[in-house]
Amino acid sequence: MAAMAGGGPRQCRRLEAEAARAVLGAADTLLFDCDGVLWRGEAAVGGAAATLGRLAAAGKRLCYVTNNSSRTRVAYTEKLRRLGFPPAEPRHIFGSAFCAARYLRQALPPGAAAYVLGSPALAAELEAVGIPHLGPGPAALPGPAPADWAQAPLDPAVRAVLVGFDEHFSYAKLCQALRYLLRGGSDCLLVGTNRDHRLPLEGGTGIPGTGCLVKAVETAAQREAFIVGKPNRYMFDCVVSEFNIDPARTIMVGDRLDTDILMGNSCGLTTLLTLTGVTTLDEVKGQEGGSALHSSIQDLLDHLVRCLVFCNCWHQRCWGPQLLPQLCPGWLAACPAHAPGPARPAEEPDGLGGQVQEHHHLLHNLAE
Amino acid sequence: MAAMAGGGPRQCRRLEAEAARAVLGAADTLLFDCDGVLWRGEAAVGGAAATLGRLAAAGKRLCYVTNNSSRTRVAYTEKLRRLGFPPAEPRHIFGSAFCAARYLRQALPPGAAAYVLGSPALAAELEAVGIPHLGPGPAALPGPAPADWAQAPLDPAVRAVLVGFDEHFSYAKLCQALRYLLRGGSDCLLVGTNRDHRLPLEGGTGIPGTGCLVKAVETAAQREAFIVGKPNRYMFDCVVSEFNIDPARTIMVGDRLDTDILMGNSCGLTTLLTLTGVTTLDEVKGQEGGSALHSSIQDLLDHLVRCLVFCNCWHQRCWGPQLLPQLCPGWLAACPAHAPGPARPAEEPDGLGGQVQEHHHLLHNLAE
Repeated sequence: MAAMAGGGPRQCRRLEAEAARAVLGAADTLLFDCDGVLWRGEAAVGGAAATLGRLAAAGKRLCYVTNNSSRTRVAYTEKLRRLGFPPAEPRHIFGSAFCAARYLRQALPPGAAAYVLGSPALAAELEAVGIPHLGPGPAALPGPAPADWAQAPLDPAVRAVLVGFDEHFSYAKLCQALRYLLRGGSDCLLVGTNRDHRLPLEGGTGIPGTGCLVKAVETAAQREAFIVGKPNRYMFDCVVSEFNIDPARTIMVGDRLDTDILMGNSCGLTTLLTLTGVTTLDEVKGQEGGSALHSSIQDLLDHLVRCLVFCNCWHQRCWGPQLLPQLCPGWLAACPAHAPGPARPAEEPDGLGGQVQEHHHLLHNLAE
Repeated sequence: MAAMAGGGPRQCRRLEAEAARAVLGAADTLLFDCDGVLWRGEAAVGGAAATLGRLAAAGKRLCYVTNNSSRTRVAYTEKLRRLGFPPAEPRHIFGSAFCAARYLRQALPPGAAAYVLGSPALAAELEAVGIPHLGPGPAALPGPAPADWAQAPLDPAVRAVLVGFDEHFSYAKLCQALRYLLRGGSDCLLVGTNRDHRLPLEGGTGIPGTGCLVKAVETAAQREAFIVGKPNRYMFDCVVSEFNIDPARTIMVGDRLDTDILMGNSCGLTTLLTLTGVTTLDEVKGQEGGSALHSSIQDLLDHLVRCLVFCNCWHQRCWGPQLLPQLCPGWLAACPAHAPGPARPAEEPDGLGGQVQEHHHLLHNLAE
């Protein structure tokens, strides 16, 4: 396991029972994404609560790292309790609402306020760190004509626009956000909680995610937002700052390649992908087809089969040819298994049983 | 002028009086952008109405090609009349609302409806071509919880989502647009009137443009919209379809490099950039600095100085190094004046007096 977290070439592999025990044994902290991994809506994923209970009993530190900006830290501890997960303190919860407030507290001068496109939870986290804010809730255009819209009063204290999930998002709010950004220029921060483009609901439906709203504001302002959430490493930095964890002894468990797994890999963590949420095996396998394999937390940690470990091969830019190559343009040149020219031998990580497979072979062998 | 519209290498140049008379003499049709070129808000640009009157008296065909989706063809003829421009018929007006309705009329089967994020004018143009629609005006979320939002009734006839400028844009509408797109898949068209990211107002302020809303829907749906407006050529195709004009004898007059000039150049038109609207000379000159030069329609066509002609060097991918190179990635390799390797001589277009300047020299010499 130590070799897996080190600097050498890494392998993507499917965890079999023995190898998985070794991976878990070498970790002292597990970071969990929540929606799609621990629960879907108000229903816990089968076996997840019991599994986390066993991990906690075995002395592992459990933290929760979620892009969802619609709940406070306290609300997450209550949900964990309600669904039968081991007790958690607010300091173990790293939601994008809390992390955004923490970021602004560091970045803004005292007294500066934030214009918020977001939920009451986002506002509450700002209040908790003492940042004045305005914006949450419905807003109307201040008159019938475009000229009126550029005349609404602006709060002189606003030095940041913060975009989270906002069911009251409207043209009026977009307009006001742009006006703060144009007034302040580079003195007005633009921060987004995350770029998730869709929020999956039960039954396979989905509703637009925060990423849509961030994109609208970025397009209006013609500048890029600082994104607090995964795959950016800021959330992981928040965890490190609180608990001083060792990346080499930390596992990130998530259901999204483009957020959870990407952040974990870029931070040097061991990463586990579950198939109970957004990502299907078909997506992992790209155009290859084949039957879907449903892995869950229970599968993962009780029996330790039917799951994938993506070690930090992101550093090596190697996901295999079918594995969302858009995540890593240029992987072909950097991957020891796929680079043009003389093939370099793949290193065999220490401490892991099971067969080390080349990435592209792995992908053929997943759907057994 | 014939050489300018032909297939050979083209030069960007500043029009002096004699050259400008030759350019105008060789044209029988002029296409005008409206906002920022003919008027700003409710005030005509100085001299613009008189100039267009002279052009009409000289037998030129005048058409109006605008990305603005908030007015019908009829409303544009009324505004032209109100501001003293020569009389125009609705068939001379190519607004993005009309052109979007025309596109959907061609693309949709009979009876199919459109879900519209847009203005009453957009709805009126759809009605004029017999396309049922729903959506314009304010919309509220159909319940307090995310699960409710995915339960609002969907019209079974909807086969297109049309995004125009919508002051009532809201999360509820974005949600409904996504649901139609997910339900229909590739059988549900996604069409945007334009990608303008900002709508400039008097006094240098701006409000978010339709491009912000299009981007939000595209991000949610994870697919690209068909864009009716400039710089896409669809609007020009509408003009050709109505009047059978010859691109080689047509001039596009606009204030935006990234819409008007880009469309004109990609359609093989001669293009005139005025500096009364969005584009400043500083932008044209990039980082070079220097005093701004304000050209207007009046300057352009009365005295024919202080204006630029961008011939269709877009085809040659050559705007010069300071001229918004992001519009033409790869220009360096394709431009005869800037290509690496042995320099090819720049061709001297026929029929144009004045000194033919290399693009990068031109940019140094503009602000005299």
